[in-house]
Amino acid sequence: MEKTLHFKDSDASELEPFLPTETLLQASAAQGRPFVTLTFATSLDSSLSLAPGTRTRLSGPESKAMTHHLRSRHDAICIGVGTAVADDPGLNCRIEGVGLDRQPRPVVIDPRGRWDLTARSKVLEVARAGLGLAPFMVTAHGGDVNPELRTLLEEHGGKVIEVDTSPGGGGDGGDGGGPGDDGSHPGNHIRWGDILAALLREGLRSVMIEGGGRVINSLLAPACHDLVDSVIVTIAPTWLGQGSVNVSPDRVHDERGDPVPPARLSSVSWHPFGEDAVLCGRLGHNPGNP
Amino acid sequence: MEKTLHFKDSDASELEPFLPTETLLQASAAQGRPFVTLTFATSLDSSLSLAPGTRTRLSGPESKAMTHHLRSRHDAICIGVGTAVADDPGLNCRIEGVGLDRQPRPVVIDPRGRWDLTARSKVLEVARAGLGLAPFMVTAHGGDVNPELRTLLEEHGGKVIEVDTSPGGGGDGGDGGGPGDDGSHPGNHIRWGDILAALLREGLRSVMIEGGGRVINSLLAPACHDLVDSVIVTIAPTWLGQGSVNVSPDRVHDERGDPVPPARLSSVSWHPFGEDAVLCGRLGHNPGNP
Ligand SMILES: NC(=O)c1ccc[n+]([C@@H]2O[C@H](COP(=O)([O-])OP(=O)(O)OC[C@H]3O[C@@H](n4cnc5c(N)ncnc54)[C@H](OP(=O)(O)O)[C@@H]3O)[C@@H](O)[C@H]2O)c1
Ligand SMILES: NC(=O)c1ccc[n+]([C@@H]2O[C@H](COP(=O)([O-])OP(=O)(O)OC[C@H]3O[C@@H](n4cnc5c(N)ncnc54)[C@H](OP(=O)(O)O)[C@@H]3O)[C@@H](O)[C@H]2O)c1
Repeated sequence: MEKTLHFKDSDASELEPFLPTETLLQASAAQGRPFVTLTFATSLDSSLSLAPGTRTRLSGPESKAMTHHLRSRHDAICIGVGTAVADDPGLNCRIEGVGLDRQPRPVVIDPRGRWDLTARSKVLEVARAGLGLAPFMVTAHGGDVNPELRTLLEEHGGKVIEVDTSPGGGGDGGDGGGPGDDGSHPGNHIRWGDILAALLREGLRSVMIEGGGRVINSLLAPACHDLVDSVIVTIAPTWLGQGSVNVSPDRVHDERGDPVPPARLSSVSWHPFGEDAVLCGRLGHNPGNP
Repeated sequence: MEKTLHFKDSDASELEPFLPTETLLQASAAQGRPFVTLTFATSLDSSLSLAPGTRTRLSGPESKAMTHHLRSRHDAICIGVGTAVADDPGLNCRIEGVGLDRQPRPVVIDPRGRWDLTARSKVLEVARAGLGLAPFMVTAHGGDVNPELRTLLEEHGGKVIEVDTSPGGGGDGGDGGGPGDDGSHPGNHIRWGDILAALLREGLRSVMIEGGGRVINSLLAPACHDLVDSVIVTIAPTWLGQGSVNVSPDRVHDERGDPVPPARLSSVSWHPFGEDAVLCGRLGHNPGNP
């Protein structure tokens, strides 16, 4: 198992204004969803990794510890199946002294059951070792879920959650695939509002959404801004180059057909951590928004 | 004319380690080139503007003042003809109290004479008003330079500098156009080393290279790292979306054919300025480089 991490209290307090409090949790619940933090690490050219499946060390030890601190502050961490397949991630919190009661629930969005989970997947190894919770898989209602995968999940204490798909890709920014993107399967799109409502019904009052590219791009689309409470981006001083897994939301136009920025953060604060910078801010109904 | 800007001394001192000193100017001159600072402002998704020719306010007033401070600290500011055509920029320093003696020389890289300079171009208006110097145009040796444009430049105190092109796009990272990029004209490529040598021969001992996309991408290619002394990037907390003018160098592979990061900064420092962050660092022979 990988070694534990430390995160300084003074650093933690800088992030506090962007983390869920009881009041904020109640406010989100009143909207029928968990508190949502969107978090990811990019290069200067806004890439998450050199290629899907190519492990890319982006953030340094300080900002890595920060990510794990954030995990301890949310009930769930959520990724798309693209990341689950590419990275076989552990999805637990490795901050020293964080017990099972403060481990976040891993959630994988996998509408058409393409997750290649086996007993040897890291997330299940972590669960068996008592170092994290077993994952929930969010899939399309009525879709094909491999019965062995379902059994495997349930044996570990996880489960499959079925949510209705939204015909035609939904009005909430699609699944992040651009038009003509051959990875886009509009028939399997689940509205983010519906995913989040299902998580709240499971008692998950806060969720940290970690990626990958398609998930992040879809949430940065204007139709999803109201679903995101905080955005925390780690930026590493490196360029990954053309062809990497990129964060950049779909183009948005104004009434005259001119391009406008799809998203802008407000209440911005920047925190240098080692060689990286961590940017915190908010989307949603902000004066600074386009 | 646009109004003057202020930049705090305390902010200026943070940037000082990345700016040319007499010792560094001599060291660069010994290598046959000016001291080179690469500077630009991007969105979180690494874009310079929404579209070529679409004015995009990226940086806030604080980091804009910083850019003008940097201009006052270099003998020249250099852009590609793409930016000259798209933006009609003024290319002077608007920090209060900076006289003509501290104005940088504007330099436009225009190998095949496509700059649409007229007497009403901003850079010439600025020169006539005594608020900046007249531009130098770097073009391909033996290329077509419109005689009227040459006269216009010379009447204002500017000039045309002819530099040999490098057959086949040169070994220094091309002009930033990727393979198959229809804007790429390898026959017109001038090696950056040759451009910089020509500027030093003109007595320009330091140059701030400001963009646009093709210029920046070509300088971030590994073959050009040794030509760049400092990199100063302003990052605004906004996403411009797919299809914007993007900074991301060409892909680089290792011996095994796996992708590796084309560039990483070392000696990194981050400086929040208003809502933006300014990142300073170095390329070149660094231990942190791939
Ligand atoms: N640097 C970081 O912080 C970070 C974090 C996470 C991931 N990553 C990287 O990101 C890469 C993977 O990104 P990716 O874009 O390929 O995959 P991804 O975003 O992890 O997963 C995308 C897939 O998840 C499903 N999905 C997501 N949202 C959905 C929705 N609302 N409704 C229905 N299905 C939905 C879809 O599956 P279907 O295609 O089956 O419809 C979609 O194609 C990997 O290289 C990984 O290393 C980096
Ligand atoms: N945010 C910022 O900081 C910032 C700063 C500057 C510009 N910009 C934006 O960037 C955009 C323009 O970028 P761009 O990529 O279109 O153009 P660009 O990089 O300004 O100019 C590229 C052109 O310059 C010539 N060139 C550059 N290097 C050369 C070399 N070594 N040898 C020969 N020719 C060379 C080539 O001209 P030919 O094509 O004729 O061969 C090349 O196509 C605009 O939208 C502008 O607003 C933003």
